[in-house]
Order: sequence, then structure tokens, then C-alpha cells
Amino acid sequence: MNRITATYDIESPVGVALAAEVLAGEQSTGTFTRLAAETDELRARSAARIERIEITGSRATPSLPSRKAGNSYERGLVTVSWSLENFGTSLPTLMSTLAGNLFELAELSAIRLVDMNLPSAFAMEHPGPQFGATGTRDFMGGHQGPIIGTIIKPSVGMNPSETAALVQTLVEAGIDFIKDDELQANGPHCPFDERVKEVSRVLNAHTDKTGKRVMYAFNLTDEIDQMWYNLELLEAHGGTCAMVCINSVGLTGLRALRNRSQMTIHGHRAGWGIYSRSSNIGISFPVMQKLWRLAGTDHLHVNGLANKFTETDDVIAQSATSVQKPVTEGGPAHLAMPVYSSGQTVWQIDPARTLLGNDDFIYCAGGGILSHPSGTAAGVIALRQAADAARNGISIQDYAKEQPELQEAIDTFPETRVAFKGSYPNR
Amino acid sequence: MNRITATYDIESPVGVALAAEVLAGEQSTGTFTRLAAETDELRARSAARIERIEITGSRATPSLPSRKAGNSYERGLVTVSWSLENFGTSLPTLMSTLAGNLFELAELSAIRLVDMNLPSAFAMEHPGPQFGATGTRDFMGGHQGPIIGTIIKPSVGMNPSETAALVQTLVEAGIDFIKDDELQANGPHCPFDERVKEVSRVLNAHTDKTGKRVMYAFNLTDEIDQMWYNLELLEAHGGTCAMVCINSVGLTGLRALRNRSQMTIHGHRAGWGIYSRSSNIGISFPVMQKLWRLAGTDHLHVNGLANKFTETDDVIAQSATSVQKPVTEGGPAHLAMPVYSSGQTVWQIDPARTLLGNDDFIYCAGGGILSHPSGTAAGVIALRQAADAARNGISIQDYAKEQPELQEAIDTFPETRVAFKGSYPNR
Repeated sequence: MNRITATYDIESPVGVALAAEVLAGEQSTGTFTRLAAETDELRARSAARIERIEITGSRATPSLPSRKAGNSYERGLVTVSWSLENFGTSLPTLMSTLAGNLFELAELSAIRLVDMNLPSAFAMEHPGPQFGATGTRDFMGGHQGPIIGTIIKPSVGMNPSETAALVQTLVEAGIDFIKDDELQANGPHCPFDERVKEVSRVLNAHTDKTGKRVMYAFNLTDEIDQMWYNLELLEAHGGTCAMVCINSVGLTGLRALRNRSQMTIHGHRAGWGIYSRSSNIGISFPVMQKLWRLAGTDHLHVNGLANKFTETDDVIAQSATSVQKPVTEGGPAHLAMPVYSSGQTVWQIDPARTLLGNDDFIYCAGGGILSHPSGTAAGVIALRQAADAARNGISIQDYAKEQPELQEAIDTFPETRVAFKGSYPNR
Repeated sequence: MNRITATYDIESPVGVALAAEVLAGEQSTGTFTRLAAETDELRARSAARIERIEITGSRATPSLPSRKAGNSYERGLVTVSWSLENFGTSLPTLMSTLAGNLFELAELSAIRLVDMNLPSAFAMEHPGPQFGATGTRDFMGGHQGPIIGTIIKPSVGMNPSETAALVQTLVEAGIDFIKDDELQANGPHCPFDERVKEVSRVLNAHTDKTGKRVMYAFNLTDEIDQMWYNLELLEAHGGTCAMVCINSVGLTGLRALRNRSQMTIHGHRAGWGIYSRSSNIGISFPVMQKLWRLAGTDHLHVNGLANKFTETDDVIAQSATSVQKPVTEGGPAHLAMPVYSSGQTVWQIDPARTLLGNDDFIYCAGGGILSHPSGTAAGVIALRQAADAARNGISIQDYAKEQPELQEAIDTFPETRVAFKGSYPNR
């Protein structure tokens, strides 16, 4: 099956069936009205095909402003397919086709790309994550269990020495993973090269002393040449993880990084709300994460359960599980590691683990570690105890009876309510 | 003034003023609750500042789904500023900051980035368009007047020989500019290198014969290394224009192209609807076009007046004029050339020219040329006549009395209604 399929949730003033034809025309042979040069043979070869239409509703007013008006606005799910012949296996051209001008069509008053399936021939042409969960553990000297991480805060404003001093505190507290904030890349007050030098000194000294290798995701987001320069610098200092804001550099920036990287790539999705926030426009995470994994990210942010942002817990669960599923049926699986973050404490680690059914995730907490009443080290220990409880199928309250750090965390952090409406395969 | 300002149109369940504080905190020092390490000095240096708040309305229900609920949802314009110290002059980090996690905040039920002003120190660190309108004209041997262009259709499906045959027809018809479709980059059925070879042979033979150099925008959208390879191939065949789908490759992809290009860059904005379609989420064109110009595009698509898509004529006018304004006050102007396209005929060229007040634009028509009853050459001539009429302040109907091709076009193509609600400086 050398066809790519995409499913859109659309609403239309001209009816879903007609709108689907316009969409398929615009995104393949390019004209709804047939041109002279558009022979039957050409259409058979290149035209997008409507595979399935499911009407889901109708409303009296358009969800988004539209040049065309209708008596009503019909809503439905439309699955369209394209031959691989149209774009080959180019990710950018896949984007131009599946997520191109169709978002602007006057025949649509809502359009969201909600699902995409690629043939294995497509996935085989892309490198995918170089290390994934197993490689990440190897870099850390065979780390077991979920990776307990934190984020440098304040996000911006500290200089390299201040950052290194904070890192010293964190590594002494037994943290597994630390990441730069997405706002901190290479500003004048905290230049990338100085930060790498000062922080690496702390990390390497800690490894020499304890044998433990803490992974630090240095945010090297920048122009291509500068990112490559940053990568080399990181390698020279024993770096094991390059963090990049994937929406800020774009798909080709991520892939360019992957092509030259000898370390894990930590994909931060800052800006994701543009794609996710409205139910009437955008792209779903299960679609975008496939593209990011094909381009080579090892870790991928999925927000956190009961987070400080807007996505529901069902969306988080869907996002987290999606990156652990094969990117296509057959062909390379290209699995990545989900990264939970945003308002995470000991309360969310059980559901975060349970919905995945494994420990192959990174769990980033800020206040959830630093605000532990017995200090940062106790904050890290409490999270590990909560992860142990989850792995053993024991509630954190029961497990805490013999684990004082966990008990203190339970008493300190307000219980969060994680509420799934859906059901998950591993739950 | 070494501060960057951004204006957001926001709606909030907690009130605009409080939401603005959350936004500014999240996108700078990173915490609404102050951390121990967040000293007064650090805040003075790095915290984003709220410069201005204007309340514009209120509604009973949220415009977008939000984790937080309110009794009402206040709407307003909020201007926030950041010190250049926070990100230096990195475009990707500017994106992570101005268009990062803020789109997901639970304190917002709508957020759209509607304006951005950069200090000249920022613009000076970026190459900007290498050629602009003047350089584009030079490549074409000193072309006068607006550039009349067309798009290869069907979008996909033709092989290189079929494409070259169509190009032969078009250059003989006197066209100035031809572009690939955004869906056609390097597919198996029409490989980039073969297309360049066959089409360039036609273009170069035409130049040898007539002295006229038609500009062809070859769509080289691909991964970075492949785009660079494509550029070299294009140069070897006398190419003068590289087309790229800027949303598909991302900002760093565009800049990487600019760094190695010796020809004009034609920026296609396929996928733009994700940013533009909803008034409750996204980024305005006047903001995005500054980033694309800083990264180096010479030409920039702005849709067309009375187009087949959804943007209103006021939005098109604002978009087209924005790319001809200096990117910052003081510093390099980095001007680009607007490209009109989508449903364009002789009817829209007068308003398209009038709102700019000059001829420095590309006017792409498909059916508006090919469907002329006296053939393609007459279609091109009619558009030139319409442009002459506009330059001389004569209506196309009056001008057509002595220009038969224009009269035929007027009789053939339905009159489009271009309706500006706003007023334009050059009108």
C-alpha cells in the first residue's frame, strides 16, 4: 500500500462531501475544474482519493470566518489518500500537501488534521530517533526506572556560574536529568558556550566522584550552522543530550541536527498551542509527533497530567502513548520517549506510568522537587518512591507508610485530580 | 531602545490584567510565584514588562476551551516587552519566547500575536532579502512594470518533459515569471534535477533567441542538505529563483537557504491558514512576514484580492503593504516583493497596484491567463494592459477601448468585487 492517508475533521458551508472533493483537488492535481492538460492517466496517477466520509453533525453558524456562506454548516470526518508518487518521501513536501493551502479554503469553516498513516516505505527513508529510551539509559550508565528530571529556573536571567551552582545542588540531590528552559538558548547574559563549559565541569566532576552520569539537555536552538557548532562544542565537553525547540527551528532544522548528532535529541514543543488549542483549526499531536520522530527526536514533550496549561488529561494520555507506538505498520518503529512536565508532583507519577505500562519516560518536576520541605534531595527521593509504588501497583499513600520522604511530599503538595474519560490499552 | 515589543489580542477567565502578568512571567523569568533565586536584580534585567493594556470587550463564554473557568471572559490588547539581553538576536529563540508556551496558558481563552516591533540592532544581525524588487528586475534584464506570472498546473502529475513543453508555450506567450506548484518539489514522477534540466533548456534557449530572461521559481523545498544540492544544480543551469515552502521547512531552513543562495528566494506560505484562520489563536501576517524577511526571502506570497480562499481584501491589503515597509525603524529596511495569487484576473490588478502605489509586485494568474479566448499570449498582454491602465490612473474599461486583448478579458472573466473597509496610505 504505497498511499498516505490523512483524516480531517472538517465543517463546511457547501456540505462535507463537496468540500472533501475541493480539498482533494486543491491538494493534488490542483484544480477543481479540470484543465486540458489533466488527462485521465494523470488523474489516476496523481489525484488524491477520498477514502471515507463520516458525517458527525451540523450547526447554524460557521465555527470559523469563511468567505462562503451556507444555510447550515455540516461537520464530518474525511479521509483522503495520496500516492507516494506525488511527493516521494520528503517530510517538508508531505507537510505542504497534508497541511498546506487547504487550511484556507473558502469551502471550509473548520479544518483540523486529526490522523495520518504512512506506508512503511516512507518510514524506512527516515533516520528516526537515534537512541530512544534504551540509548538514553545507556548514556546514563544503565539507569533503571523512569528518569526523574527538573528544569533550570528562573527560565532566563542567571549567568553561567549561577546556573552551574544550581546544577551542583541538583546533582548532589541525586537528580537524573536536568534541562535548560526553552527561553534560554544563547542569550548575551548566558552564552551557550560558557554555560556548556561551566555546567559540564560540574556534571563531569560529579560522574568522576560518584560514577553516576546525570543527563543535561542543553538548549542549542539556533540557526543551522550555529546548532552544528553548538553540537561539536557539546561533544567536546562530554555532552549527552541536545535540546531543541522543534517549532522554532522547523522540521528541517530538527533533521539537520539529527544528521550530525552523536547524542540524544530532546524535542521541546514550545509553540504547540497554535496547533492544538482550537478544535476548529490545527493539527493533532498524534500526527505531528510522527513527523518529529521521523526527523529524529529521541525525547518528546507531551505536557503533564493535571498540568498548568489547557490540554485535558485524555489528550495528554493520547500524546504520551502515541510516541511509544510504531510510526508505521511494518518498517522501523522509530520509538521515542515521552517527557512529562508542567506542575508535576508525586501525585501524577502513578497515572503517568500506568497509562504507558512501562518506565520509559522522563518525568520533569520543578516546584514538585524544589519545594519539598526536607530539601531538594528528599524531593527527588520522594518521586522515586512514588515511581516504585506505581511499578509495584501500590497506592502512594500505602507505600508512604514506610517512606518518610514520600509521606512529606503527600502532605505538602495538594492532591491533583487526574481524570481520564477514555480508556488506555495499558491501563 | 534595546527592547522587543509584542502585542497580543487576548481573552481571559481571570481578567486581562492578571492574564497579562501570567503571560509575561511564563515567557521570561518563568514563574508567576517568585523563586528564591529570582532576585530583584535578575528580575530588573530579565523580566518581561507589560507596556500597555487596552480592554476591548467581554463575553459570557470562552472563545476557546480553557482549563480555567470564569464568570466572564474579558478581552483586550496587551503589549509586552523583553530585553534583547534575554535572547540576543536569534530568530528561533525569539519564536520560542514570543510564540512559545503562552498559547497554551490556562489563564487565556484566546490569544493571537498581532503585532511585533524589533529594535534596529536586531535587524542588523540578519541578512534579509538579498535581492528584493530591484535585484529581481536585474535578474530579468531590467524588467519594467509589475511582473506577470503564472503557476504550472496541474500541480502534480506532469513529468519533466510535459512541464518543459508547457513552459515553452508560456515563454512564447511573453510571460515574465513562472513558478512550480507548492505540491511539486522532488517527487518520483517529476524529479527536481530532471525538471531543472529540461525546463532550463527551454528558458535558456528563449533567452538566446529573444534576449528576454523569464524567471522560473523552481520549488526546491526539501531537507537542508538536499536544498543546498538543489541550489547548486540550479546555479549550474542558470537558475535565477529558488522557491521554498517556508512553513514546511521552518525558519532555520529558510535562513540556511539564504546563506548559500546566489539567486532570489521565492517564499511560498502554504500552511499559513493554521496561523491566520481563527481570530482567537495564531499569528498575524504583519508579524510573521518580518521574521521571514529577516531570514532572507525576496518574494513573499500574500494571497490575492477577491481570492478563492478566506482572507478578506483588507487582510490582503495589509499583508501586501507590510512587506514593503522597513522591517524596523532605522537599520536595514530588508524590503521584499509581494506576490499576489489565487483567482487573479485583469479585474484585480488595479486595486493590487493602487494599494501599493508602485509596480514592485509579482502578479500570478492561472486561469486568468490560460482561459483568455484568444490564447495564452493574449492573456499575458491583457494583464499588461490592465497594469498600464492602473499606472496611468485609467479604468480598465476605458483603457480597453483601444486594447482588444484587454476588452476580451473584460468580457470573459466575471468582474470581481474588491472591497476595502480600511484605508491605505498609498490609495
